[in-house]
Amino acid sequence: MRVLQRPVVAGIGFTKITAHWEHSLKDLVVEACLKALEDAGRPEIDAIVVGNMMSGIINGQENLGSLIAESIGMTGVQAVKVEAACASGAAAIMWSCLGVLSGLFNSILVVGVEKMTDVTDNEDMSSALATAADYDYEVFFGATFPSLNAIIMRMYAKIHNLSPEDFGYLPILMHKNAVDVPHAQLRFPIDMNGYLNSPVISDPLKLFDCAPIGDGAAALVIMSRDRAKGLDHIVEIAGFGSATDTLATYRRESLVRLMAAELATKRALSMAAIEPRDFDIVQVHDAFSVVGYLNLEALGVVERGKAHEFIASGDADRSGSLPVNPEGGLKARGHPVGATGVYQVAELALQLSDRAGPSQVEDPNVGVAMSVGGTGSNVYVQVLRRVE
Amino acid sequence: MRVLQRPVVAGIGFTKITAHWEHSLKDLVVEACLKALEDAGRPEIDAIVVGNMMSGIINGQENLGSLIAESIGMTGVQAVKVEAACASGAAAIMWSCLGVLSGLFNSILVVGVEKMTDVTDNEDMSSALATAADYDYEVFFGATFPSLNAIIMRMYAKIHNLSPEDFGYLPILMHKNAVDVPHAQLRFPIDMNGYLNSPVISDPLKLFDCAPIGDGAAALVIMSRDRAKGLDHIVEIAGFGSATDTLATYRRESLVRLMAAELATKRALSMAAIEPRDFDIVQVHDAFSVVGYLNLEALGVVERGKAHEFIASGDADRSGSLPVNPEGGLKARGHPVGATGVYQVAELALQLSDRAGPSQVEDPNVGVAMSVGGTGSNVYVQVLRRVE
Repeated sequence: MRVLQRPVVAGIGFTKITAHWEHSLKDLVVEACLKALEDAGRPEIDAIVVGNMMSGIINGQENLGSLIAESIGMTGVQAVKVEAACASGAAAIMWSCLGVLSGLFNSILVVGVEKMTDVTDNEDMSSALATAADYDYEVFFGATFPSLNAIIMRMYAKIHNLSPEDFGYLPILMHKNAVDVPHAQLRFPIDMNGYLNSPVISDPLKLFDCAPIGDGAAALVIMSRDRAKGLDHIVEIAGFGSATDTLATYRRESLVRLMAAELATKRALSMAAIEPRDFDIVQVHDAFSVVGYLNLEALGVVERGKAHEFIASGDADRSGSLPVNPEGGLKARGHPVGATGVYQVAELALQLSDRAGPSQVEDPNVGVAMSVGGTGSNVYVQVLRRVE
Repeated sequence: MRVLQRPVVAGIGFTKITAHWEHSLKDLVVEACLKALEDAGRPEIDAIVVGNMMSGIINGQENLGSLIAESIGMTGVQAVKVEAACASGAAAIMWSCLGVLSGLFNSILVVGVEKMTDVTDNEDMSSALATAADYDYEVFFGATFPSLNAIIMRMYAKIHNLSPEDFGYLPILMHKNAVDVPHAQLRFPIDMNGYLNSPVISDPLKLFDCAPIGDGAAALVIMSRDRAKGLDHIVEIAGFGSATDTLATYRRESLVRLMAAELATKRALSMAAIEPRDFDIVQVHDAFSVVGYLNLEALGVVERGKAHEFIASGDADRSGSLPVNPEGGLKARGHPVGATGVYQVAELALQLSDRAGPSQVEDPNVGVAMSVGGTGSNVYVQVLRRVE
């Protein structure tokens, strides 16, 4: 591998995640981008890479590359959108890194965005999200993301002999973490009683197993190491990798193992030349509780079927041996789909430069983020490392 | 610039463009990809990059990276979709080249696809295409792509004092070129009378000014020069570049000059270290006749307002001094939106390896392709060069 110098995160910006009824997609993007550019010292930008999944369907607007370039006063710059279902933001980061490693771009602005609350009909939102599943063999027959993940959850509970309580530990921790995080969407704690009594969405999936719908944008300035010389609080993107699995859930060899997540992890760790025991913070894609557990398994940090014990033990707390989603994850920080992968990496980068404020964990050196498209059909992993 | 070795096109495959009512998006992609892989000697593939604009809206299917990886038996491979409105295919090629130049990928399968005829209502198709324009300031008020391009055409005719006939030369040549091209959609000649008497779509735009709607997929295997060692008929991607302009047409400084096209040309030519006089074949994005003319101006091969004379003179014929769209261009070969940029480069690569069959021009050395998103809001240029 002839990669000598890894790219770095040189600037970070994001909006609060909420139902931004008084703001457009453009407003959100502008806020996130200007903050990230300011944070990076207003550098010249060679290209913009947008991570977004559904703006064409929900907002009647594709061509976000041009929209965003113009909105932030950079008309002329090279710009493109990248889509990989719910992992679109993470994919945008990875392809930006490739752009920087090519030597042709020194400085790329990545922005992930999703404006989900402009839809008045809940069915429209479910349909838009379902475009990440297999239209011909899943969606056509009525499958939605909650129902597909309910099947996975049921199988996972059966195989590992889990009780309903066992799935509650992750969302309870996520809500606890989000309480003091200013940009988080759901800043209130929940307890086991509240979790167990929350409405059933698709049996056995409860409301508090599911990440909320929200609007948000997050941006990063990614630079070559050379270009970032002299800048403060840069964080290295030490490794990355992605992998695909069958589009439809039923065609997987196993419902309770994310093969793409394992393969993407292997690729990212190989590039970063580290092992799972080197992780100091983990960001998992807990769109549903069971997906969070499967992510922890795929990352190699818990044994199969033991993720709930790991969370219950306190090891995943901010002060634990391996903090998981210290900002509340998809469940409580929020999950504006195309932006989520960028929020994850932004939060890691803040942690690894000691700028995470109330959610700061103690002296982390390596962080990893996993972003999952579909029910595991396209998974991205990025490894970030503190720059001494 | 530390780019030493340009990537190459090592394999080419595409479907015929037509209304493929009996084939799905997946069928088209599989045909194009398997042909391209076969053409490249069935190499190992490190990543798949998909160019597509509207599958989420029209086909209810995003996440094409996973869909395509699985469809061609490559589940596990890294895969992503890239979108830049009508230039999505060209954007996929450019970002694949960056991936190869990064040194992390040696071999990328690019596939552009659009399945446009699964829409039963013409209004749905217009709405899907209009997501490339500015929703808030154009589409909301009823603008469509034909109406926006009609405004540009009217202004162009007024400024350069052009007659209705003057716009006919390009479509007439395109239809003439497509007659013997097996993969072309409209394989019949038209004459000036037919052009002038074709129905008005949006005054002054006539039916024969507009590219048709169709289904198609085109694929390329792009490799590092090292990886392609020993392969036959490789063609170098000597330079590429893109640029953005305002999303909305009315916000441009000039309606009759494509600033993004000029900037993208400059970037691509600078990377390839050539000048417009070095072009031996040109592929322009003639979605509408006037756009084809504006492309020729932006590429620096005709004076402003003189493109019609250049075409009328015969210089743009296959046997002329600078053949334009020898396979019939968007107008007659067809314009399956997300695939078009890949068809353009595929056709150039066939020409530059003397494999273009009936459309072969004599001994070309350098070809250039321009792909236009929106009404010029995101433009991509790629320069291909014969490998001796």
